Amino acid sequence: MTADDTPPPTGPTVLKVPEGDTHERLVCETCGFIHYKNPLVVVGSVCVWQGQFLLCRRAIEPRRGFWTIPAGFLELEESTAEGAAREALEEACAKIEIEALLAVYDIPRISQVQIFYAARLASPDIAPGVESLETRLMEWAEIPWDDLAFPSVQWALDDYQEYRGNDSYTVRGNPDNRPRTP
Amino acid sequence: MTADDTPPPTGPTVLKVPEGDTHERLVCETCGFIHYKNPLVVVGSVCVWQGQFLLCRRAIEPRRGFWTIPAGFLELEESTAEGAAREALEEACAKIEIEALLAVYDIPRISQVQIFYAARLASPDIAPGVESLETRLMEWAEIPWDDLAFPSVQWALDDYQEYRGNDSYTVRGNPDNRPRTP
Repeated sequence: MTADDTPPPTGPTVLKVPEGDTHERLVCETCGFIHYKNPLVVVGSVCVWQGQFLLCRRAIEPRRGFWTIPAGFLELEESTAEGAAREALEEACAKIEIEALLAVYDIPRISQVQIFYAARLASPDIAPGVESLETRLMEWAEIPWDDLAFPSVQWALDDYQEYRGNDSYTVRGNPDNRPRTP
Repeated sequence: MTADDTPPPTGPTVLKVPEGDTHERLVCETCGFIHYKNPLVVVGSVCVWQGQFLLCRRAIEPRRGFWTIPAGFLELEESTAEGAAREALEEACAKIEIEALLAVYDIPRISQVQIFYAARLASPDIAPGVESLETRLMEWAEIPWDDLAFPSVQWALDDYQEYRGNDSYTVRGNPDNRPRTP
């Protein structure tokens, strides 16, 4: 106990099954708060200007210095397309026009669902936001495949190539899981 | 203070911008815990047996007594298809085979992304789980449209009708938002 009788901060650190629940949750023994952890939604886009792809070099961990497409966590009260457009603006100062849903990837190991759109850049005006070291428009052949930040960046770029000019394109899932089964 | 000097439970009830953050979060003044609230992912399926649709009458709030298709919150370390299959098992004791991704709906008002699959029932054996009052296989004409629990239940059933036997079906978004734009 501290001098004013306030217990030291503990936070939800004890794993137990709350009454009426079926799963273990982290509970704070100080204040009784139950911390429901849930999967997170990542939203992003493959943004194209006259056949060139927008890529951003990450200024933040994880994978600082590696290349990505604009993507990040969906915020509260935001649609997935709004979130994808916000991320393009934040990471590359890019205004985009959403064309179509491109892919829904499951990354259960890290409890993420990643939702990517195909998008057009409204103009070639791009610049690094605070989370980017560098932004570039690249031809397909220029994309630094060995220096991409995450596997799903490559998946989305590959899926965009399938999508481009393909009237019968349908939204993709993980590349190792088509058709998608549980 | 209670008799044993433990303060009464408060939980994260104070809204403030934590140091280094950009958004207001709920903070517990007792233990210092920061509660990051994020959008939730709902997963579900339209499950069909010989042209009949699986519907469940809800035993829990919200919308107790109204009809739904099996759906619920995605759990940690679970793929969206696994979650949809788990919900069918929990709510209707139904074993399903996922066929295809059917729809991704944005419900930003309640910060949800809802992901629905088209699925086959492995058998007509269904029964109410603890969250259901009743489970039934219904012909299309029998579906109680005025007693469905949520708008997205109707959207998913409608989208399934478009999906069924349509080789050029592509994954749908919200019905008021096609093609989907931010």
